[in-house]
Amino acid sequence: MIFEDTTSNITGLDLDAMKKAREHLDSLTKPQGSLGRLEDLCIQIAGIQGSKPSIERKKIFVLAGDHGVTQEGVSAYPSSVTLQMVRNMANGGAAINALSGCAGAELEIVDTGMEEEINLDSVVDRKVDNGTNNFYKEPAMTLEQAENAVKHGIDLIQDFASDQDVIGLGEMGIGNTTTTAAVLSTLLELEPEEVTGRGTGLEDEQVEKKARVIEDSLEKHTPFNNPLDILSKVGGFEIAGLTGLILGGAAENKVMVVDGYIPAAAALLAIEIESKVENYLVFANKSAENGADKIIEHLETEPLLNLDMKLGEGTGAALALNIIDAAVEAFHGMATFEEAGVSQD
Amino acid sequence: MIFEDTTSNITGLDLDAMKKAREHLDSLTKPQGSLGRLEDLCIQIAGIQGSKPSIERKKIFVLAGDHGVTQEGVSAYPSSVTLQMVRNMANGGAAINALSGCAGAELEIVDTGMEEEINLDSVVDRKVDNGTNNFYKEPAMTLEQAENAVKHGIDLIQDFASDQDVIGLGEMGIGNTTTTAAVLSTLLELEPEEVTGRGTGLEDEQVEKKARVIEDSLEKHTPFNNPLDILSKVGGFEIAGLTGLILGGAAENKVMVVDGYIPAAAALLAIEIESKVENYLVFANKSAENGADKIIEHLETEPLLNLDMKLGEGTGAALALNIIDAAVEAFHGMATFEEAGVSQD
Repeated sequence: MIFEDTTSNITGLDLDAMKKAREHLDSLTKPQGSLGRLEDLCIQIAGIQGSKPSIERKKIFVLAGDHGVTQEGVSAYPSSVTLQMVRNMANGGAAINALSGCAGAELEIVDTGMEEEINLDSVVDRKVDNGTNNFYKEPAMTLEQAENAVKHGIDLIQDFASDQDVIGLGEMGIGNTTTTAAVLSTLLELEPEEVTGRGTGLEDEQVEKKARVIEDSLEKHTPFNNPLDILSKVGGFEIAGLTGLILGGAAENKVMVVDGYIPAAAALLAIEIESKVENYLVFANKSAENGADKIIEHLETEPLLNLDMKLGEGTGAALALNIIDAAVEAFHGMATFEEAGVSQD
Repeated sequence: MIFEDTTSNITGLDLDAMKKAREHLDSLTKPQGSLGRLEDLCIQIAGIQGSKPSIERKKIFVLAGDHGVTQEGVSAYPSSVTLQMVRNMANGGAAINALSGCAGAELEIVDTGMEEEINLDSVVDRKVDNGTNNFYKEPAMTLEQAENAVKHGIDLIQDFASDQDVIGLGEMGIGNTTTTAAVLSTLLELEPEEVTGRGTGLEDEQVEKKARVIEDSLEKHTPFNNPLDILSKVGGFEIAGLTGLILGGAAENKVMVVDGYIPAAAALLAIEIESKVENYLVFANKSAENGADKIIEHLETEPLLNLDMKLGEGTGAALALNIIDAAVEAFHGMATFEEAGVSQD
């Protein structure tokens, strides 16, 4: 089995720790269950960590990559903006800088395959290639490249996050909503137009064109045999990397916080590789990008936030970290009925 | 007109400041509008403050009061729990302590009319009376008491929050979901069972009884002439106080963050008194308490969060403060396209 060294370490949740967390929550000075999803979060995190939930160290990874399919005019911005925005992040000027700061999370920016070289020490170099091929004409990458990109993602946990409790997933890559729509259309067996959106700001007509490019590309590359095959034919380096990051994080019992659209598609791929991964995921936000809702429906879940955002970069994950923090803070900070001398009925 | 000294200071939003905020947001390194409701928040806050949005100082008020109608067996907990929980808050052991801490907000606890005396310096004394009367049998309070309770709320802003930018609204009062349901049924012209919920944990049968108590009480006290009349007949001291707090905050250009159910009903009363108040409100969370959805529908708004919570205390407001903070942080922290050298097309 593929990535078995990693997937064999992905287990079910610790039911005993979850039961104890439930009991503790029920002993706290509030009507049972009245903190709603904050309580669910505490219980899930206890199950992941096999102990009382603890969120001390938080890191958001932003994986960047470029996409050959932008040659087909599927994006409102040119590929060069990927590097410009990554440099902006390295300089602290992007939305994810502000929002990860608010959440008290570290930020790790990774070049998984940008077209150009950034040459900045603060950006981790895991470049598989200088952008993918244009999948409208040929496979986006070789199978070996897809495997390497996933492997790089897995290794990021050991290399940069072994001491972290919770990991937020972000990305930057002009053209990656096209790639993601192609992946989703294949995985969820939906028509391209059902999962294709405006990306960074396309008009209706351009969205139609984007969907047609995806439709033709999928026709060219069909059949798709497995997640790696999908990634190699119509994927991107950052989506492959996020898929690996999710597998690697789950294998190391990290809480994985999944941002709206592109990381959510990576989560679907990871679940396809090893279904138990789902135990480790917290879906941060419902992206306003068309198709994000289909992921949510498919997984029968409900993200924590619905704020009409569609920026990516991990911004939804960063916001959700505030909620997760608050949940765990309440778990540890609140008095029990007994401690506070409050009547229980 | 009632409370005219206050209501005459409640104005429309500063449209020029809002336009400038919109322009600034559009200059930042992100696709226009991609931060969704975070951008809306920045613009609203700019309109309230008449300047760039600024959230430096945050305070959550928890107004506590007791309710004579608990004599009818409408709550899962006895009235004595109000004081016990307020003491718990004063000692730092309640959910609102943990969550306001996470949000970097101060907490101000106010006795607006608890049955018993708490005698703690850390709890502000604005007691109108030792609990309300049982409105199943007689008016909850006199018109004068209702007016005083609202006035106390208005004055809290001057007394304890003149230097605050944003105010979160919370409450504690065994029986106050019954009171709130009665207020909502009258204000929104809905049947009591449509707005009556489980409160701190009633069974179906008990909820039915609660709705019948409300129905009979409303019949006894009908007609209701205006918000003060409603408050005096079936209201509570903390709901009246919250109504005043909202009016007072709006008059002083504070951003008022409205927690799920009881504060949202107080917001309806405040809007009834002066409709321009609505400009100053941020609805924090959709409470899971039955009836909260009716307030939201009536105002045609959508709260920031929907986390299946129904604890009260201002916990939803505290969580929302994290989102508001992040929005304003992005506004000020992000680089413009020009500063970052990022192409705009």
